[in-house]
Amino acid sequence: MIAPISALVSIIAGLYFYYFVNKQDSGTERMKEIASAIKTGANAFLKREYTVLVMFVVVVAALIVVFLPAPIWSTSEPLKNVALGTAYMFGSFCSALAGFMGMSVATKANVRAANAAQQGLNKAFPIGFRGGAVMGLAVVGIGLLGVSTVFAITGVPPTEVIPAVLAYSFGASSLSLFAKAGGGIYTKTADISADLVGKVELSIPEDDPRNPAVIADNVGDNVGDVAGMGADLFDSYVASIVAAMILGSAPALSSATYVQIPLVFAGLGILAAVIGALTVRVGAKGDPGGALNAGTYVTCFIFGILTAIATWYLGFPWQLWGAAIVGLTAGIVIGITSDYFTSEDKAPVLKTAEASETGPAVNIITGFSYGLRSVIFPLIGIAIAAAVAYKICYPLGGSDTAMSVEYAVYGIALAALGMLSIVGLTVSNDAYGPIVDNSKGIAEQSGLSEEVIAVTDELDKAGNTAKAITKGFAIGAAGLTVIALLAAFQEIASRAGYNVAFDIMHPMVLLGALIGVAVPAVFSAMVMLGVGRNAQRMIAEIRRQFREIPGLREGKEGVKPDYAKCVDIATVGALRELMPASLVAILATLIVGFVGGIEALGGFLAGAIFSSLLLALLMANAGGLWDNAKKLIESGKHGGKGSEAHKAAVVGDTVGDPFKDTAGPSLNTMITVMSLVASMFAVLIVQYNLLHLLGLA
Amino acid sequence: MIAPISALVSIIAGLYFYYFVNKQDSGTERMKEIASAIKTGANAFLKREYTVLVMFVVVVAALIVVFLPAPIWSTSEPLKNVALGTAYMFGSFCSALAGFMGMSVATKANVRAANAAQQGLNKAFPIGFRGGAVMGLAVVGIGLLGVSTVFAITGVPPTEVIPAVLAYSFGASSLSLFAKAGGGIYTKTADISADLVGKVELSIPEDDPRNPAVIADNVGDNVGDVAGMGADLFDSYVASIVAAMILGSAPALSSATYVQIPLVFAGLGILAAVIGALTVRVGAKGDPGGALNAGTYVTCFIFGILTAIATWYLGFPWQLWGAAIVGLTAGIVIGITSDYFTSEDKAPVLKTAEASETGPAVNIITGFSYGLRSVIFPLIGIAIAAAVAYKICYPLGGSDTAMSVEYAVYGIALAALGMLSIVGLTVSNDAYGPIVDNSKGIAEQSGLSEEVIAVTDELDKAGNTAKAITKGFAIGAAGLTVIALLAAFQEIASRAGYNVAFDIMHPMVLLGALIGVAVPAVFSAMVMLGVGRNAQRMIAEIRRQFREIPGLREGKEGVKPDYAKCVDIATVGALRELMPASLVAILATLIVGFVGGIEALGGFLAGAIFSSLLLALLMANAGGLWDNAKKLIESGKHGGKGSEAHKAAVVGDTVGDPFKDTAGPSLNTMITVMSLVASMFAVLIVQYNLLHLLGLA
Repeated sequence: MIAPISALVSIIAGLYFYYFVNKQDSGTERMKEIASAIKTGANAFLKREYTVLVMFVVVVAALIVVFLPAPIWSTSEPLKNVALGTAYMFGSFCSALAGFMGMSVATKANVRAANAAQQGLNKAFPIGFRGGAVMGLAVVGIGLLGVSTVFAITGVPPTEVIPAVLAYSFGASSLSLFAKAGGGIYTKTADISADLVGKVELSIPEDDPRNPAVIADNVGDNVGDVAGMGADLFDSYVASIVAAMILGSAPALSSATYVQIPLVFAGLGILAAVIGALTVRVGAKGDPGGALNAGTYVTCFIFGILTAIATWYLGFPWQLWGAAIVGLTAGIVIGITSDYFTSEDKAPVLKTAEASETGPAVNIITGFSYGLRSVIFPLIGIAIAAAVAYKICYPLGGSDTAMSVEYAVYGIALAALGMLSIVGLTVSNDAYGPIVDNSKGIAEQSGLSEEVIAVTDELDKAGNTAKAITKGFAIGAAGLTVIALLAAFQEIASRAGYNVAFDIMHPMVLLGALIGVAVPAVFSAMVMLGVGRNAQRMIAEIRRQFREIPGLREGKEGVKPDYAKCVDIATVGALRELMPASLVAILATLIVGFVGGIEALGGFLAGAIFSSLLLALLMANAGGLWDNAKKLIESGKHGGKGSEAHKAAVVGDTVGDPFKDTAGPSLNTMITVMSLVASMFAVLIVQYNLLHLLGLA
Repeated sequence: MIAPISALVSIIAGLYFYYFVNKQDSGTERMKEIASAIKTGANAFLKREYTVLVMFVVVVAALIVVFLPAPIWSTSEPLKNVALGTAYMFGSFCSALAGFMGMSVATKANVRAANAAQQGLNKAFPIGFRGGAVMGLAVVGIGLLGVSTVFAITGVPPTEVIPAVLAYSFGASSLSLFAKAGGGIYTKTADISADLVGKVELSIPEDDPRNPAVIADNVGDNVGDVAGMGADLFDSYVASIVAAMILGSAPALSSATYVQIPLVFAGLGILAAVIGALTVRVGAKGDPGGALNAGTYVTCFIFGILTAIATWYLGFPWQLWGAAIVGLTAGIVIGITSDYFTSEDKAPVLKTAEASETGPAVNIITGFSYGLRSVIFPLIGIAIAAAVAYKICYPLGGSDTAMSVEYAVYGIALAALGMLSIVGLTVSNDAYGPIVDNSKGIAEQSGLSEEVIAVTDELDKAGNTAKAITKGFAIGAAGLTVIALLAAFQEIASRAGYNVAFDIMHPMVLLGALIGVAVPAVFSAMVMLGVGRNAQRMIAEIRRQFREIPGLREGKEGVKPDYAKCVDIATVGALRELMPASLVAILATLIVGFVGGIEALGGFLAGAIFSSLLLALLMANAGGLWDNAKKLIESGKHGGKGSEAHKAAVVGDTVGDPFKDTAGPSLNTMITVMSLVASMFAVLIVQYNLLHLLGLA
């Protein structure tokens, strides 16, 4: 009961914030006009994206109905197949809904925060933050309400719930993958193209209204960073709950409670996030970055208290609480270390900025190297969190080794859940970033005064810091979640009568692992090449407009670029590029499974987890530090704006764009989708796989 | 007996080639002067490097004598400890000797090939190739002779030989690691600095004698690409033989033959390489790249025939021959696919060159993406080779599962050996590259005619193609070798009474694996940051010379830059930077082992193998394709030399330099060293490790 009630509380709090944002004034006609262009572009993109995805979802739902949980021609319960297809569609609908809600309010909050910035930082900040909080609370509220609904309908006996929540989670994840990849390609196409022609070739400022790509760039912040990122965390959040439920339904644990504990903890996490979000505020000369981080710490603290009370009151073993807290702590540690690698006053950014004086190549090498170096602490953090959670919960099984292992892997799943428990606030902080980035853009385009722009700049900087921390959090949480999902996959296979260990020296596990290592690399390459191709088309269009529209370059009164054309190119290109990469990830999983069997697929998932954690951390942190090195130079260091060092730093920043906003974050979702596909099909794969059928494995 | 005889044949053939190269004329006074400057610089570097390394080797040897195979205070056979220390020193001596011999002849062959280029391609080519072949044959000859010697002294009974050959291999590898990392830092420091100041800032051609870094750059080709690369393959070669010997000494196989088969196959590989090398020749208007590749195929074919005869004559099971041939075939396939990603007429290079028109950032993103994509085929190749070799040899064990597994992993080791069997020729082709690159430099600096420079250019291009293939080969072979070494590590632990499976869901294995994934990234970062730091020092010096030496920039008659100063900066910097990264790799292995125990260390090695294969393939291929995209533009495409596209491509090429010549290839050696350290200390780690002592694992 805690879960649906908390979910409703969260949705109500979200509606309150929405009402708060909506009642604010949205400023001058010019501001309204710009905001409306952004909103129109963003809605147009989402509408076209969802139109494509509806077809995809329907096709996959049909396949599920035909094949899962058992081929429809061979099952005595065809209704189960229909239920599974429905749960899948419901999951993707919930994911789309959360993204859409977040984006709707973001495109309202941006202009209102810009307008309020005229009355000072402390007026503008809550609009930006609460706009983001709508998204954050929608993600957790809808996510948990959805899981609770599926559970309420199918949950007795507990083992029956598994295929249904898996299908729900798979629906959420597959939609998230497209939303993240599509939005990521869109946003970076627009960003890179606008920068390369505007800043580099013509030396006009960022967000200059003469630039034909400026609206597309602002739209990109919304569809990529708000809707896409919301979908990303929606998917990790739901997957972590589902992984814990699957492991909690193990016969060895023999108690329905273990299926429900994840729902209880998740519900309490939501309450903590709502309270935390309400405490976030900043004074007239306050520090918005500090306010966001303080909100995070408050939420963590409240979560710790609430879950301790629940554990005591409901009589759960204390070890489970311990596992959740271990995950939460690891999340904070990972966030802080990624902050080190992207902070403007720490060695990585300082050295990369300094290296820019020697030209773009040395800037790239330096930033890339620090990005490589940055992976060590998060990986150790994930490793220790998983091992400690395992060790804490292992003794619950007493002297029975098999049962101890069940408890122990359940502990890993709870650690993942603990890390994601505060996701309501994480998403709020994260969505705050693109909202105030938009505010800055609107302030510049509508000719507000220098002081107002300075205020929006201050807000924007805080967004970047908060983003670095939450990104580290998101990757760490995804890492633990997919480890839990791997355990869930193993559990499902073993319930289907196929007990298996993923021994790395087993030839099929090794084969799978080596192939798995390659898939995230190929996936990243495909989305980044998509950005490159798309950007080339858009750059040609921007150059054409500057060449062919008389007076545009000089900024003649009344001359306007054709913004809609750029929005359209970004939209069409993103939709064309997002599908192949996502399909490769899903199909590779199915091929490895149906050819090589469970061992190969387990190895494949493990290899893919290792490789995508490595690449995601590298890309997120390298991208963030290149961005901040450029900002540091723009603040006057190493020659300031327009210097050779600045040009070099812009190259690094541009390389970092698809790293940190397209490929890096999509990898989280990709690996979750792959893990869920494996679990969905595990029972079928046990029965049908080529090498076993040929007697070769 | 086949092994030492083949090794001697190889050394004799090497001496014949050396004599052939040495008797050629070395041209004009100016040419001799330049060649002598390169030789002096290269010798100075090696001398200083070896001076540092001797201290390191002595310290490690002392530690080995004290602690291994058992602590000297607790053993009844202290002589064994001394023997181990001696074998270690012998291994590092052999590795250094092979590198030194190769480099000595390379610094003779370069100028002689440049001189012979005046009489045509078919006169110059054999000098370049045979110069490289001395290195190739020295590597395999010395390597195999060394292992055979250690075996002959300690080889009865076969199990006694294991610690000794391990120590020999560890000696070879640790020296190789330093040689590769040090040489790689040196060569790229010089290359990047020379290019950035010369080509980019002052727009003077490559290899222009006015550039103060030009001699350092030519020296770098020798110490990095010849001596370093020779050491790298020396280490993989020895390690693959040793891994097969360890697995072949398993009690289950119960026959001394299995320890000797690797030596027999390696010996036959050498004979094949000698015959192959003798067949390499090219006509007056012939195609040197084709000649090199033809030599490779001839060698593979002869190896197949010779080993088939030996298998039949000596009555080895045919499955073992099959495993070796599987490895060899996989090597060829990997080589061909990496050729695709770096060829001037294939999509990756063409698209990257095209992307350069949009500026350096898009060039980087495109090249990096293709680099990511390129990892898939080699990884699948390694995966299938390992799985097939395993499956082929598994039935040899009959119905006994444990014995079948012993045969099967022995099969993997033989596949690695098969892939490395033709290493004599691979190294010859690879060393050919820097020799003719030097020839081109000497031809330009000594003012030979345009036609002669064109001939050296032709030779140089063939070197680049051959290099791409052999690099793929080297990484693939290292991959299989370290998998075999992981099996060897497991075997050694199990003989010490600790039977263990590396199940990825075991918490210590998982912990180790996640940390292992991070280490290659940190290692790469450290060596690349080393290059960056070193290049900044050197760039400052080059700029100073152009500023302070009157007439230098204008190229006034008689004005010469201070070449020696640049050589010195590169040397001192490389020595300072090479140590920390290498120590991190070794110490991380020991810490994980002595804290977490055998499971953690096994997971650690597996994680490090996955991550370093991914990074090494990415870096080698991305670096190669950026290089060739630049060359394509220089040949006149997309605006040709001096265009904006060319400038962008130069940035990509510069970023690729430390990727492909410093970090990428060092990773091979790093992972071998880590695997050998683990095996060396396995017995001690079984007895002493923190978490077991605390009762936590």
